[in-house]
Amino acid sequence: MQPSPDELAERLARTRARMTRSGLDGLVVVDPANLHYLTGYDAWSFYMPQLLFVPLEGEPLLIMRAMDAGGAHRTAVATPPERILGYPESLVHQRNVHPFDWAAEQLRAHGFARRGRVGYEGEAHFFSVRSFLALQRGLPEWQLVDGHDLVNWVRLVKSPAELELMRAAGRVASAAMRAGIDAIAEGARLNDIAAAIQFAQATGVEGAEGDYPAIVPMLPTGESADTPHMTFSARRLDAGEAVSIELAGAHRRYHAPLARTLSLGRPDARLARVAAVAAEGLQLVLDGLRPGLTVAEVHGIWQSHIAREGIEKPSRLGYSIGIGYPPDWGERTVSIRGDDQTIVEAGMCLHIIAGMWMDGYGCEISEAVAVAERGVEILTDAPRELIVLEDA
Amino acid sequence: MQPSPDELAERLARTRARMTRSGLDGLVVVDPANLHYLTGYDAWSFYMPQLLFVPLEGEPLLIMRAMDAGGAHRTAVATPPERILGYPESLVHQRNVHPFDWAAEQLRAHGFARRGRVGYEGEAHFFSVRSFLALQRGLPEWQLVDGHDLVNWVRLVKSPAELELMRAAGRVASAAMRAGIDAIAEGARLNDIAAAIQFAQATGVEGAEGDYPAIVPMLPTGESADTPHMTFSARRLDAGEAVSIELAGAHRRYHAPLARTLSLGRPDARLARVAAVAAEGLQLVLDGLRPGLTVAEVHGIWQSHIAREGIEKPSRLGYSIGIGYPPDWGERTVSIRGDDQTIVEAGMCLHIIAGMWMDGYGCEISEAVAVAERGVEILTDAPRELIVLEDA
Repeated sequence: MQPSPDELAERLARTRARMTRSGLDGLVVVDPANLHYLTGYDAWSFYMPQLLFVPLEGEPLLIMRAMDAGGAHRTAVATPPERILGYPESLVHQRNVHPFDWAAEQLRAHGFARRGRVGYEGEAHFFSVRSFLALQRGLPEWQLVDGHDLVNWVRLVKSPAELELMRAAGRVASAAMRAGIDAIAEGARLNDIAAAIQFAQATGVEGAEGDYPAIVPMLPTGESADTPHMTFSARRLDAGEAVSIELAGAHRRYHAPLARTLSLGRPDARLARVAAVAAEGLQLVLDGLRPGLTVAEVHGIWQSHIAREGIEKPSRLGYSIGIGYPPDWGERTVSIRGDDQTIVEAGMCLHIIAGMWMDGYGCEISEAVAVAERGVEILTDAPRELIVLEDA
Repeated sequence: MQPSPDELAERLARTRARMTRSGLDGLVVVDPANLHYLTGYDAWSFYMPQLLFVPLEGEPLLIMRAMDAGGAHRTAVATPPERILGYPESLVHQRNVHPFDWAAEQLRAHGFARRGRVGYEGEAHFFSVRSFLALQRGLPEWQLVDGHDLVNWVRLVKSPAELELMRAAGRVASAAMRAGIDAIAEGARLNDIAAAIQFAQATGVEGAEGDYPAIVPMLPTGESADTPHMTFSARRLDAGEAVSIELAGAHRRYHAPLARTLSLGRPDARLARVAAVAAEGLQLVLDGLRPGLTVAEVHGIWQSHIAREGIEKPSRLGYSIGIGYPPDWGERTVSIRGDDQTIVEAGMCLHIIAGMWMDGYGCEISEAVAVAERGVEILTDAPRELIVLEDA
């Protein structure tokens, strides 16, 4: 189910309003989450150069590999076919020509080679340096300036239709977490636990089918639990070990992440204490979070709690979520930390993650939430505390 | 199991030899597959800026987010701890400072701010424009030049140890394909078929555990089979429809892709003919492929076959494979098409994919192969022809 034409028009209007405030005459969009947000386009084609050009006035232009452009109308449902251009296969992976040389020619042919400030996505994952230099060379009329994740900021407050997708993603996340918890046992291999989680992530639940999450299940384990982003191996779980599960449920590209930590048998005293502090701190944040606060004030609730307990966490407490594509389900906008002065609004969705990566052990407890008019709506459902498998 | 110190030293030496031939005094490596190849480093941390600086002489320097740097020694087994630097969390997702400002300062402090030509990876996925501009600004002594996937080209010919990993990946791919074929039936949902494949991909086979593939299973179906990169939905398979499965088996980051097309019941005559032509053409290529030919000559075998049959395929016939990270399992080096003059050598690994994306239908039949001294070793095992499910 693709966004309705009205919703797409509204998103484009909000993007253009922000472009006007930033003094931009055009915007080059490459982040696949932003392409999906603005057009509905959805395919695993982002490993090849592709872009959406958004002029301040007139129809946007979508440019991608010919192989992908031919079927783009299946998901970019409101984009007229003549505004979807495919570059020829002969431009793929060549040393001396680049698909964006061709894109620059097309943008010129469509009347967009006018003097003006054009924003690009300086930190987007799939905007290569060659892509950037090709536009710079091919469209010297443009003053290219970093648009600083402009569309990502437009995405920050979700519409009612998007909130429904986030709720569905939350149900998928809860089911995937249950599958992961059920697969954990002494002697189980991490890759087999990941297999069970991935099965549940793709299947989904009644009324909410799964989609592929932007990140594979993370299972930081034992001593290497201080290394949060190591991916699964065939290592087996030992008795007495702790393992964290960090995953997301995805539904039609919307993501609800969820993290929990389990102990195989009686937990180490340090871990038990850190987990209790983290769970209490998370509860305090959930109780206090509401529209009107700054993100820094929300972080302050957490920070004063862990300071009282004598615990440090240098990394941020979370980030905004919504549409996700590999390699990240974060929106790259709000970071829950002491220097973020964004004002919390209803409709924002956040992953609040009390991830404590201590020296030689670690613990992660999180919730995915939507900010409501008075407080928060928790999108996921799993026991909040350190999960102890007594018979493990 | 990480690469041995000897193998890592050999890879670094080959990289430096190629740097010398390209007139480079240093190389900035960001492609996660190249980081893994040169250091063993392996984690899902590539969504944040990170780099390996390879000077022509002296120890390389690995720079990543502090949260990830702390545990990097667990996989970057031969890198001395003092050569792994972590940038502070306060630099993450900020508008006015960037982690690579910090990286530039560190490179300077380590004596690398010397005049010279330094290569960068212009088409790598995780080298953002802001990262590039930060290095350009922070190290004005450097003449930054596009290194054109230099390390990717070093990776093209596999070592004996790598070929063992590729064979294991091939066994995982064959098992995942069987799981996919078994899950296909009239009325089955695409996301449930993907779930079965992903379960098999993570579990792996006896003696070869699975790893996460760089791309999710692709299931182009029915009329939308002309759109090769649409990802799975909850759509159900109808009687008489055709569906393709494109997947990879991954083992310790090495990938063997495999594609097949199935028909639920008697296939459409056009599909049956195209599939037969594709399977014959693939067989001719496998029979003819051997060291000493150019890639263009290999493509010529295919091209003259399909031209005789009156069929066109504008896209390339395949590409080199090996280590893969999202969003692509191709190496971005050899492309099997008429203009690639690379000379085939033993130890190269290729995904040869007869992907025929026709108007309104499509068919994909492929093999992952390693080039041997005389001919090819096929890494995967699945029935080669169009698979017809008669009782579907």
